[in-house]
Amino acid sequence: MNKPILGIIGGVGPLATAYFMEAIIKKTPAATDQDNIPMIVFNDPQIPDRTAYILDHSRPDPQPEMRKVARWLEDAGADYLAIACNTAHYFYDAISDAVDVPVLNIMEETAKHIALDVGRGGRVGLMATDGTVQSGVFQGYLAERGLVGVVPRAQTQRRIMSLIYDGVKANAPYDPGELCAIAEELRQEGCDAVVVGCTELSVIYQDLAERPTWLYDSLDVLAQRCVDLYLWARERGGDIGM
Amino acid sequence: MNKPILGIIGGVGPLATAYFMEAIIKKTPAATDQDNIPMIVFNDPQIPDRTAYILDHSRPDPQPEMRKVARWLEDAGADYLAIACNTAHYFYDAISDAVDVPVLNIMEETAKHIALDVGRGGRVGLMATDGTVQSGVFQGYLAERGLVGVVPRAQTQRRIMSLIYDGVKANAPYDPGELCAIAEELRQEGCDAVVVGCTELSVIYQDLAERPTWLYDSLDVLAQRCVDLYLWARERGGDIGM
Repeated sequence: MNKPILGIIGGVGPLATAYFMEAIIKKTPAATDQDNIPMIVFNDPQIPDRTAYILDHSRPDPQPEMRKVARWLEDAGADYLAIACNTAHYFYDAISDAVDVPVLNIMEETAKHIALDVGRGGRVGLMATDGTVQSGVFQGYLAERGLVGVVPRAQTQRRIMSLIYDGVKANAPYDPGELCAIAEELRQEGCDAVVVGCTELSVIYQDLAERPTWLYDSLDVLAQRCVDLYLWARERGGDIGM
Repeated sequence: MNKPILGIIGGVGPLATAYFMEAIIKKTPAATDQDNIPMIVFNDPQIPDRTAYILDHSRPDPQPEMRKVARWLEDAGADYLAIACNTAHYFYDAISDAVDVPVLNIMEETAKHIALDVGRGGRVGLMATDGTVQSGVFQGYLAERGLVGVVPRAQTQRRIMSLIYDGVKANAPYDPGELCAIAEELRQEGCDAVVVGCTELSVIYQDLAERPTWLYDSLDVLAQRCVDLYLWARERGGDIGM
């Protein structure tokens, strides 16, 4: 097997996982099937809802199942792991500690990427779940890079949650223009950049015909990082070196 | 883990595999992440090109690697398997014999589905790889259902191969209208139905805004079969019963 093998903790959500794979494949410089990145994916629907637990710790804890899937992927031969879910990164340390292989961090990668473009002090609007917004984890990664996370007003946040839970996760129709409208509102409130910080919103973003340059998709950034790391490791004989 | 678990022999091709997962997820009656079908996917780029081997047996044989992935998925806990590649079904018996769990057959399912719609004696245009067309395997499955497989003329077949290999598999731009134009030609030559019988062409089909009712996508049929079988097995406590 070509090394390194990417392991994906999937099902969080399921459609976001398929879009994540698609983004990786489309970004890979591959002229044939055989040039592509080897991937093992476990689309596990038994991982409990992340936001539900973050907001109320009496709800089912997703950590045991996510740790189990991470270990399962490592045992199956994965050399590095990724999770196509921002909210799950509230539990990043718990997941990362469960395995010996590196786990890429979608929030850290996204913050790093935006910081290169907008520079220190830039204001970054955050479109994410209640779990991500209220935990403050994404804002923390932005702050580490000298960026200021801006959270939407309560009413806007409800519209974001509806797009995620009543739309994409529910397999129900939604208006893609709503994503752009909310992003535009944040932009007009003085944000230098807006981040699509929930991979269900990435499903909508990835299907947009046109994307504003100031709108950054966390799934897109993580997919590019997976490709870059693979190509870099291939040059070194497959050693991930992290 | 919710049973049954679907195992996907992936990477043949990689993008077709992601689209196959997406089609399954979109067809699943799921109101939340947790209602979805558990899937294990191995996107293995080391499976040699199927058409190359079918046309010239001195080329690398894809069977050992496909059998290996099938067994790997079974060991990992998959209760039934699917392969999002028509051409690979030339080797169906060899793959199926490698495992104890059932392997769904994309050609058989597609022939069965079309036969219900067009009835015995119906003429079915075949859009597929040279490997599939020249091996006659798909035509055999159609004949079993009383259908007549119609293969494109040589020049049209070259256009189909270009869409597959120079377009989708090469990660290069292509004209989606070309798929419809070729299908329309087959239709005008007297076909009652035309089948998208290569999952790289399914990638194009799945992105079409409008699809003629007489154009059948093998990936779409297989995805629906995976969902139906899962729901049926769930009713029976997870037993796949095949």
